[in-house]
Amino acid sequence: MRFLSDNMASACPEVLAAVVAANAPDSGYDGDALSGRLDAAFSALFGIEVAALWVTTGTAANSLALAALCPPYGGIVCHEDAHISTDEAGAPEFFTHGAKLITLPGEGAKIDPDGIAARLSLIRDDVHRVQPHAISITNATEKGLVYTPDETAAIGSYARENGLAFHLDGARFANAVAHFGCHPADITWRAGVEMMSFGFIKNGGMNAEAIICFEPDRAQEIRIRRKRSGHLSSKGRFQAAQILALLDNDLWLANARKSNAGAQRIAAAAGDRLIHRVEANELFVAVSPDEAAALRAQGFAFYDWGAGQARFVVSWDQPEAEVAALAGALQAL
Amino acid sequence: MRFLSDNMASACPEVLAAVVAANAPDSGYDGDALSGRLDAAFSALFGIEVAALWVTTGTAANSLALAALCPPYGGIVCHEDAHISTDEAGAPEFFTHGAKLITLPGEGAKIDPDGIAARLSLIRDDVHRVQPHAISITNATEKGLVYTPDETAAIGSYARENGLAFHLDGARFANAVAHFGCHPADITWRAGVEMMSFGFIKNGGMNAEAIICFEPDRAQEIRIRRKRSGHLSSKGRFQAAQILALLDNDLWLANARKSNAGAQRIAAAAGDRLIHRVEANELFVAVSPDEAAALRAQGFAFYDWGAGQARFVVSWDQPEAEVAALAGALQAL
Amino acid sequence: MRFLSDNMASACPEVLAAVVAANAPDSGYDGDALSGRLDAAFSALFGIEVAALWVTTGTAANSLALAALCPPYGGIVCHEDAHISTDEAGAPEFFTHGAKLITLPGEGAKIDPDGIAARLSLIRDDVHRVQPHAISITNATEKGLVYTPDETAAIGSYARENGLAFHLDGARFANAVAHFGCHPADITWRAGVEMMSFGFIKNGGMNAEAIICFEPDRAQEIRIRRKRSGHLSSKGRFQAAQILALLDNDLWLANARKSNAGAQRIAAAAGDRLIHRVEANELFVAVSPDEAAALRAQGFAFYDWGAGQARFVVSWDQPEAEVAALAGALQAL
Amino acid sequence: MRFLSDNMASACPEVLAAVVAANAPDSGYDGDALSGRLDAAFSALFGIEVAALWVTTGTAANSLALAALCPPYGGIVCHEDAHISTDEAGAPEFFTHGAKLITLPGEGAKIDPDGIAARLSLIRDDVHRVQPHAISITNATEKGLVYTPDETAAIGSYARENGLAFHLDGARFANAVAHFGCHPADITWRAGVEMMSFGFIKNGGMNAEAIICFEPDRAQEIRIRRKRSGHLSSKGRFQAAQILALLDNDLWLANARKSNAGAQRIAAAAGDRLIHRVEANELFVAVSPDEAAALRAQGFAFYDWGAGQARFVVSWDQPEAEVAALAGALQAL
Repeated sequence: MRFLSDNMASACPEVLAAVVAANAPDSGYDGDALSGRLDAAFSALFGIEVAALWVTTGTAANSLALAALCPPYGGIVCHEDAHISTDEAGAPEFFTHGAKLITLPGEGAKIDPDGIAARLSLIRDDVHRVQPHAISITNATEKGLVYTPDETAAIGSYARENGLAFHLDGARFANAVAHFGCHPADITWRAGVEMMSFGFIKNGGMNAEAIICFEPDRAQEIRIRRKRSGHLSSKGRFQAAQILALLDNDLWLANARKSNAGAQRIAAAAGDRLIHRVEANELFVAVSPDEAAALRAQGFAFYDWGAGQARFVVSWDQPEAEVAALAGALQAL
Repeated sequence: MRFLSDNMASACPEVLAAVVAANAPDSGYDGDALSGRLDAAFSALFGIEVAALWVTTGTAANSLALAALCPPYGGIVCHEDAHISTDEAGAPEFFTHGAKLITLPGEGAKIDPDGIAARLSLIRDDVHRVQPHAISITNATEKGLVYTPDETAAIGSYARENGLAFHLDGARFANAVAHFGCHPADITWRAGVEMMSFGFIKNGGMNAEAIICFEPDRAQEIRIRRKRSGHLSSKGRFQAAQILALLDNDLWLANARKSNAGAQRIAAAAGDRLIHRVEANELFVAVSPDEAAALRAQGFAFYDWGAGQARFVVSWDQPEAEVAALAGALQAL
Repeated sequence: MRFLSDNMASACPEVLAAVVAANAPDSGYDGDALSGRLDAAFSALFGIEVAALWVTTGTAANSLALAALCPPYGGIVCHEDAHISTDEAGAPEFFTHGAKLITLPGEGAKIDPDGIAARLSLIRDDVHRVQPHAISITNATEKGLVYTPDETAAIGSYARENGLAFHLDGARFANAVAHFGCHPADITWRAGVEMMSFGFIKNGGMNAEAIICFEPDRAQEIRIRRKRSGHLSSKGRFQAAQILALLDNDLWLANARKSNAGAQRIAAAAGDRLIHRVEANELFVAVSPDEAAALRAQGFAFYDWGAGQARFVVSWDQPEAEVAALAGALQAL
Repeated sequence: MRFLSDNMASACPEVLAAVVAANAPDSGYDGDALSGRLDAAFSALFGIEVAALWVTTGTAANSLALAALCPPYGGIVCHEDAHISTDEAGAPEFFTHGAKLITLPGEGAKIDPDGIAARLSLIRDDVHRVQPHAISITNATEKGLVYTPDETAAIGSYARENGLAFHLDGARFANAVAHFGCHPADITWRAGVEMMSFGFIKNGGMNAEAIICFEPDRAQEIRIRRKRSGHLSSKGRFQAAQILALLDNDLWLANARKSNAGAQRIAAAAGDRLIHRVEANELFVAVSPDEAAALRAQGFAFYDWGAGQARFVVSWDQPEAEVAALAGALQAL
């Protein structure tokens, strides 16, 4: 029973069907009909004109956007546990040509204007220090929490007032939207987000993520950088098809609701053992080494997450029986 | 009738079937069972132990290998029409952190030791000049010719004697092997090639190419660079499945034989109009603007390739009727 | 008798005196009084408000300006013999993070709008090709010729009409101004130049060159890049002092007139052997290997410059007797 | 009375005299006679064959060495207050093409094997995390402490055992050697240091620092990177002359002894107010805002260093009267 990561999940049947259906000769790169529909599809979703580009990984989506938002000599403010800082092998540094990640702590992998201001107050404004140019947040966060629309907007205001760009790592954006039942705009452009990565792979996709530019004029630079970094696929229709299939009938939301619901069920069972509130599809649970071993002996696969903690991630395709089993096992500890 | 580029072709039914069959939860990135079979599959094909890595584009495959073969301050010798020089948006410069492409002319987009030596003799050996560190050839070339085993080995010897690495852009490697009926080793490691990109997308794949390291120890650096450049897919099994499907029963060769055969049939009809010999699946044909217009009026899609030239590319899935039609139309000009 | 290069010359007595005089404690970096005078000194010279920054090499001066004018994914148009392309070890690629030099031929290392337009017409405007973002010329050129005000302005107009930045490598700018007796503005900002390196080291300086920004607002980015590239000296006053000493009483022009005059005297003696007109302080002379050997036997040091050519450079401090000796020796050949 | 930084000090008379004496035509770059003497001079000093290169700034010296020791995808372990991390504007990231600084805390800006091991234990060994490739220490540290030979050797052993390179930022190396009266080898190559920057500018130089390679074969790569980064001066003899002047008769040591002695005198007066032991030429002193204002009113210039702290740096040329005055003023607080 695999609770290791949602990126090990299967792809949706609808996604596979769309990929198969896309298999006819068409123009190369992003010149095909399906790729041509992305801008309109996301514009409709967000209620504002956006430009949307497919890429094949979330790391590429984040890094390409950050490279457009921060010069090589600039800094990007983010949480010290941000995926871009800890788990992308220095990809932001590679794509930006050496920009510095300016990290800060924060409960649940969340940051806020006060924390950002305190961190930036340490950076004297002269040419000897790398100056901040952008803020990046992850929603849902690496600890399974979500930024509310107000929390996001507060960071957006801070960013605008301080001349900083505002990027959102939306690897689990669907889980955040599903949590609130809010409009996708509420935690993006209405809150000041300028660019985001919109994750699909963890949520039923195969190998397609989207970069969304809320200022469409800025997309051309990213298109150039996408080619230059080897991310302009020859047959882009296969990526576009996946994304359109997940947007169709809000399948992306339905999938996220499933994984969120599974997490809630397990959270209720975990009770006081929860390290963080559970708002998306990830759970961080206090378990002793013996307990962890016992769980593994029962067939549960998961990662240790520091001393005495375990991380469980519920996938969109997680069988209900597995969810129930884990809930039961945690309650029985 | 689309003769624009083989990257607009469809994916093989076998490839799609493999992708669908790969759709079960498995370990992420390249930890899955299918990805784990790549090394052995290519080792069997090449008759030597190799390391093989999937990526989603040929540009990434070439650039990752070049970054491992040439330091940021080095130079890469290639033909002036090499895809890496003209059509990859500076990706080699991006991945290598600024290495310089040292280009030279050569009939049919081919280079040889004499030409390379002449070009390099212009570069004084001091710190003011970018010194060569690698040679890159494309086989089949950008003009549809193929390097013979001997021609390849001659460059390999030159490279070894001069301390240069030897890279092969194999976007249409299948067409080169199919042309000769040679062993894949004959135009790769036996001839001194150290790393290559092995193209599948133009030949029936969807979005998977392979990097082959003939010195397996060097693969780890490329694995790191692959992650850092956002090319480590979360669900790599979908790429591995495509490649294994094309290797299975030598489907890659069968596909290439089909496109080569189509090109030969058209070449016979084009006769004296051919600008270059036709050895793979590309034809460069002398046609006047009026003739080009007439062909387009008959429904043929193709690119102009400089003044008075047209390029036709035959795809693995090109219907025989389209091949026959083009042959007829050229003969009738 | 050293005619190898003007960068082997001595420093002016006035420069050394200024360095010695600058030796008192003062604010670090460029916060000292002498550095603070640079903007005004160059603004007075050029007749327009400029920002001026010292660096210690011409390579740094050129590359820092190019990095501010061209993004990592862009191209810089220049002559194929431009110093930035052939003799700076890939520094422009390093500072710009991989921009591509788009080179073209041209008599006497000069380029013009027609040649540039012809070269750029080969670059299809799509994301697969590196698009031009800047033009760089060298005045005086690497072959000792000078661009007239009109020639410069023609390139400036072309640049503006095509949205390209315009950079001037002025390693021997003094020689160009001295040749025409024109106002420095005539071959810089009045002709559309946006940034330039203003060379002093070949003309009596020790280790100080200047970057001039004709749009002062753009200087701050260069100040940041200067620090980031290790070019912000701790005790900048020693560089500022050199530059101010050379600007004082137009010493820079007097020095250039001396070397130009020496070159003219030798040119008159060389007659039909001259490969290029002599307009600055460099001469390219047709000499057979035997003749070259004979000249060397007489004590003249110079570089061979391709088959049957020799390059002689006259320095600001070249003794008149050496000039006379070389003139005599060439005449006697 | 300037206690702001030793990089505001004057240059030694001997240095200026050497610069003036070096002013005759000679070969360019580092081909001159003075530059040719550096290797031997430093080899004699360190008692082992080394290669030595001049550059004009400490930032360049550090960054060029780090670029040779760490690949673009690697990490460099250092103290969180290390100059390379906080005060070089991202130069290490620029020169290494994006390597990551892996920082850790430590009393007095010192790190040790236990702290390093604890920090590195957090980095899972896979391609998603930037792996460490080098350790960099500063001696004397940014807080004015010195690593003993044993402390240095302990880090050297750890580095060797873990396959990490070992770099020393020696901006104030002279002060460290002067403190112990040890042999320069004791805190460098005998303790495992592979490359270092040897600072002269803060200690009586004008604009010359040295990079020392204790494995001379590795110097050629740095020579190439030096040119490529615009740090190969045209008239290198002016830098070589400064360094040779300071090495001559151990002037570098005499200067450092002067500034160390001044710091000791002030330290004795500061007593319990000292935040750190004083082992080199820097003092960190607890002073209230009012006390700081009072000191400034008496004519002392210094930097605040966080809340309630002031930093005083004694320069090699600090008049004894100023030292006495500051000592008196601190005692009188």
